[in-house]
Amino acid sequence: MSAVGVAPGPVAVVGLGLIGGSLARLLAARDVDVVATDVSPATRAAARRAGLTVADDVAGCVADASLVVLATPLRAMATVAADVAEHAPAAATVTDVGSVKGPVRAEMAAAGLAGRYVGAHPMAGTERSGFDASDAALLDGVRWAVTVDDGTDPGRLATVLALVTGSCAGTAAVLADDVHDEAAALVSHVPHVLATQLLNAVAGAPVRAVALGLAAGSFRDGTRVALTDPARTEAMVSQNAAWVAPALRKVVRDLELVVASLERNGSAHAFFHAADGVRQDGRVPRRDGAGDRQAVERVPLAPGWPAVLVERCTGGAVVVGLTSSDVEVVPAPV
Amino acid sequence: MSAVGVAPGPVAVVGLGLIGGSLARLLAARDVDVVATDVSPATRAAARRAGLTVADDVAGCVADASLVVLATPLRAMATVAADVAEHAPAAATVTDVGSVKGPVRAEMAAAGLAGRYVGAHPMAGTERSGFDASDAALLDGVRWAVTVDDGTDPGRLATVLALVTGSCAGTAAVLADDVHDEAAALVSHVPHVLATQLLNAVAGAPVRAVALGLAAGSFRDGTRVALTDPARTEAMVSQNAAWVAPALRKVVRDLELVVASLERNGSAHAFFHAADGVRQDGRVPRRDGAGDRQAVERVPLAPGWPAVLVERCTGGAVVVGLTSSDVEVVPAPV
Repeated sequence: MSAVGVAPGPVAVVGLGLIGGSLARLLAARDVDVVATDVSPATRAAARRAGLTVADDVAGCVADASLVVLATPLRAMATVAADVAEHAPAAATVTDVGSVKGPVRAEMAAAGLAGRYVGAHPMAGTERSGFDASDAALLDGVRWAVTVDDGTDPGRLATVLALVTGSCAGTAAVLADDVHDEAAALVSHVPHVLATQLLNAVAGAPVRAVALGLAAGSFRDGTRVALTDPARTEAMVSQNAAWVAPALRKVVRDLELVVASLERNGSAHAFFHAADGVRQDGRVPRRDGAGDRQAVERVPLAPGWPAVLVERCTGGAVVVGLTSSDVEVVPAPV
Repeated sequence: MSAVGVAPGPVAVVGLGLIGGSLARLLAARDVDVVATDVSPATRAAARRAGLTVADDVAGCVADASLVVLATPLRAMATVAADVAEHAPAAATVTDVGSVKGPVRAEMAAAGLAGRYVGAHPMAGTERSGFDASDAALLDGVRWAVTVDDGTDPGRLATVLALVTGSCAGTAAVLADDVHDEAAALVSHVPHVLATQLLNAVAGAPVRAVALGLAAGSFRDGTRVALTDPARTEAMVSQNAAWVAPALRKVVRDLELVVASLERNGSAHAFFHAADGVRQDGRVPRRDGAGDRQAVERVPLAPGWPAVLVERCTGGAVVVGLTSSDVEVVPAPV
């Protein structure tokens, strides 16, 4: 843990599903003082059996917290945020792990927590859900998005970056909410929609039985995330509808051109080669990691440093660590 | 190998790329008499170093063959088919491993090989290509499509089924070319197009650097097959343009409805649940296999048996073996 660390008091994790459960397990494994809770008594019991410190309600969970991590579904956020506003110390920083950031910040502002909030989104998941599927390894060393706005308190941002790059051994892109939500639409929500569409197309086809029998790697990989709980996928996509809809509109326009080209020429050369630059520079990550730590640069914790990080990270740089005087940044690959 | 087996003489594999090379290696490992060739001297040398029996040209490769497997790109098929027609024994059966079947049958007919031809397509592949990437394990025990028409010789069909279910330890769906090509569009070619589209959308986005930095599992899986040689993907899709174009048209229509729904309601419930039946009956294969051999049924090798197989397999049944008197079939899962 860096010198710019979490204030005294435990980290409170509210919500023990896949992500909240994995985070609580990871922090406990790293000897961070963590107290968790969940709305479900059965989940609380399971978390106690797993060795976690568990409070019976949100009030008890956040009462002494230095940092509150909201890991509940978005639909529960307004209620939980009101509890946090009432029961958490004013010094406690509030963050979350939701897959959209603009809508969460709006909920926080509505609950009077705008000044204490820093957004966060760990880029990890599995097809499974619930505390039983949670695993400290799921969030160990992964990339996070950490989102800010003009009013974000630098000390609270440092608290969240210390958690991500210290206890969680991860890396962080510090971004505006909109940039995160647009990027998440492209690399997560649109992929979930297209995976669902691939599955739907086969499910509705006269040759369905044959097609499923012949399905090999490209179909299995292309539909993997569509096989998860479709209600969860629907919720995730709906929460980011403002960015998913225009991104999908562009997908539809592009595919119309491919179809027209296939119908006219039997080919669509430009389409298949449009991403050759990305293929060639090897920028598609095969798995997450800390980047090239050889190339670490230091951003001093001088006035205005959050805005410097946003500018750097929007260009592709990543925060890999935090000291008492600097943020350690790895530049975007050239 | 079953009693209804390959006639005397080696299996000739023409073309030693990923699939041809893997097939030659697998047959050799199973002590099948196999002779292979490739247009590239370097590939022939590599195949000899790998211990395969290699002929210097197509004529030498097929001269004594009982079964000829064409594993060349479709664009080379006309030339190779002419060589086979000239040099292979009239008794030799001709098959192939191409990802589309209607266009290959047309090439065979043009070369005068219609009466000797049975179509075949192993449902396996990797992102890699070429003999260096070939591996006997790639085709060991996989699902094949085997295609016929009204004129297919039953003995030649039996020869190909014996190869697939015997030496290759695989299973086969016996289908009409069109049914295969439509199903392949849905489970292979359309997935390749959508994977390419996902990559293109990020490559062309202003938030490209951020998006690639945040990309996690859904994007990696959704774009895996788009990272392979785009020229190969383009060729595969183009060859089946007649089926890919209408399937993609339907994808475009469905996605337009999703976009409209997201724009209007912020949700798209029906879309996300359209394939719930497929999810629930667990019909999406996680990997290929022989199916439930407990449920084997026997189709006697009586007059008209190929048509019986086509009917059964079009409903989802799979051929798992062949004896001197019967074809062993596993019915479609209920």
